[in-house]
Amino acid sequence: MTQTLTPRRPKSNGSAIETLQSLLAGDLEAVERLLVARAASPVAMIPDMSGYIVGAGGKRLRPMVTLAAAHVAGGATPGTHALATAVEYIHTATLLHDDVVDDSDLRRGKQAAKHVWGNSGSILVGDFLFARAFTLMVETGSLEILDILSHASTVIAEGEVRQLAAQGRLDLPTEDYLAIIEAKTAALFEAAARAGALSGGSETLADPLAAYGKNLGLAFQIVDDALDYGGTTAVIGKSVGDDFREGKLTMPVIIARRRGSDEDKAFWDRAMHAETRKEGDLAHAIHLIRATGAAEATIAEARAYASLAQQALNTVPASPYRDVLDALADFTVSRVS
Amino acid sequence: MTQTLTPRRPKSNGSAIETLQSLLAGDLEAVERLLVARAASPVAMIPDMSGYIVGAGGKRLRPMVTLAAAHVAGGATPGTHALATAVEYIHTATLLHDDVVDDSDLRRGKQAAKHVWGNSGSILVGDFLFARAFTLMVETGSLEILDILSHASTVIAEGEVRQLAAQGRLDLPTEDYLAIIEAKTAALFEAAARAGALSGGSETLADPLAAYGKNLGLAFQIVDDALDYGGTTAVIGKSVGDDFREGKLTMPVIIARRRGSDEDKAFWDRAMHAETRKEGDLAHAIHLIRATGAAEATIAEARAYASLAQQALNTVPASPYRDVLDALADFTVSRVS
Repeated sequence: MTQTLTPRRPKSNGSAIETLQSLLAGDLEAVERLLVARAASPVAMIPDMSGYIVGAGGKRLRPMVTLAAAHVAGGATPGTHALATAVEYIHTATLLHDDVVDDSDLRRGKQAAKHVWGNSGSILVGDFLFARAFTLMVETGSLEILDILSHASTVIAEGEVRQLAAQGRLDLPTEDYLAIIEAKTAALFEAAARAGALSGGSETLADPLAAYGKNLGLAFQIVDDALDYGGTTAVIGKSVGDDFREGKLTMPVIIARRRGSDEDKAFWDRAMHAETRKEGDLAHAIHLIRATGAAEATIAEARAYASLAQQALNTVPASPYRDVLDALADFTVSRVS
Repeated sequence: MTQTLTPRRPKSNGSAIETLQSLLAGDLEAVERLLVARAASPVAMIPDMSGYIVGAGGKRLRPMVTLAAAHVAGGATPGTHALATAVEYIHTATLLHDDVVDDSDLRRGKQAAKHVWGNSGSILVGDFLFARAFTLMVETGSLEILDILSHASTVIAEGEVRQLAAQGRLDLPTEDYLAIIEAKTAALFEAAARAGALSGGSETLADPLAAYGKNLGLAFQIVDDALDYGGTTAVIGKSVGDDFREGKLTMPVIIARRRGSDEDKAFWDRAMHAETRKEGDLAHAIHLIRATGAAEATIAEARAYASLAQQALNTVPASPYRDVLDALADFTVSRVS
């Protein structure tokens, strides 16, 4: 697919998040208030657990994309704030459920909530936040927005189940991997951008902004998957090797295995299963991912999607919000390169 | 509260479900078709698991209440069918998540789905069905219906978390128990009846039908909790003693413990915790529940709510659908008496 890409625009991307945060400061404050206020409940575990994970310093990428899309399309309203809050709640609910499903120990650099409140708490508070997301969307008064986000929620769950079913399938085609991350990650970015555009008042910008969101989400997830073998936990608060320990097939492994010798293939087939994994396998996995160029190939793929996200902005009228969405695509990839 | 009740109307209640099923035959067929069709997915685990639990012979009580409320209020439309399907999906999603939370082994008389597909499958397919419920509700075109059901879903999750937090609290006041089951069970019956009435075209019947649904739901859950100590698994396909083994405080235990001697209290305080439970404790628990009259008191409480449900129908115009809703309240209680 790289041959269809236009050259990346030269720009400084170091502070895309900060610029976006300052452009959206008032909106983000409103969203932060809603994130706390709408998780209120007489049942203490709900605000406690929600505060623990929502307050754990996520970058609010999805709310920012929602808000920026609304601004590009005309402006953010109180309905946009409700929508952006709903999007973050949906994301948080999937994090809580993923922690139980993936059996992961860290989330946003902190102990996963399930270690504090138990698996049951994670499941049920996730359900609460997911339901609350829909009450917030009802407040936007837009059936179209509800349609977009409920459809995306279905697709996300479908992607998660598909990933679960693919576990241990070491010859997973790259296309299947991409279909999984398109569903479990990109669909929410896409829906956030599309609904944001509609909430901002533009029908015509919904498609290009949705395309931006989808490709940004793909780039973001591919980078995340590369970082899981990248030797740092600092950036996203995720332990290196989580995917490896869970036997989750991601792009670095798929490429490294495909390019590897028969001996390498045998290694992957053994090491990606918990029962046959040995001490030192993670280090060797990281070695193979680098030696085969799988790390670079993965990052190149992420760059390609970031570039597609930027191309989708070509039909969007110039504005500081558009520029910073553009810069955000670079930032997403810069986390890993 | 019994002193506020009017005498129960004399009627035969043996075949309330069958009568309702035959009155609603066409509608129920449409709902059954939707239950299968809208769980379709290229990811086989979703229709497989959904079919396993949805097809496991649930009585479709909630869809029937939805459909009958619509008929009472003017008539069922394709939107009503979508709504009734959504209600059953929400219920199914909570069953799937409950199985993981409660660690129960049987569901509708079959092995719990989690034993076939694992906890992760139960969580994620539950999420899928819950999201799908919202896409179905969008198809009703009614923001009010979405508001009612999204609010109810929040309340259900809140009730589940509250129940989780109350686990092991043996002096749980009856009022707290009632608040929990009002949230986790009655809220969906209430929402189904209210939304059904709106979908049938009546604003004025929404409140009385909602009151019917809420009280029916309370009666239903109290009976369920009584049956868990009742010595039969035939009626609801639930193993006797599930609540006991999970240390879940329900009305029979609350009353038996309150009425018991110091020795009995010490028994409950020990036996309701897995760590200190001994062989033969369940049999003694059932003995105490009968000896203290807690079983009868629980059933009387259920009857009182069934009667309140029937009273709520007083302002509803006479029709075969009203009569059968009335009979359904008796049927709910007849399961146990």
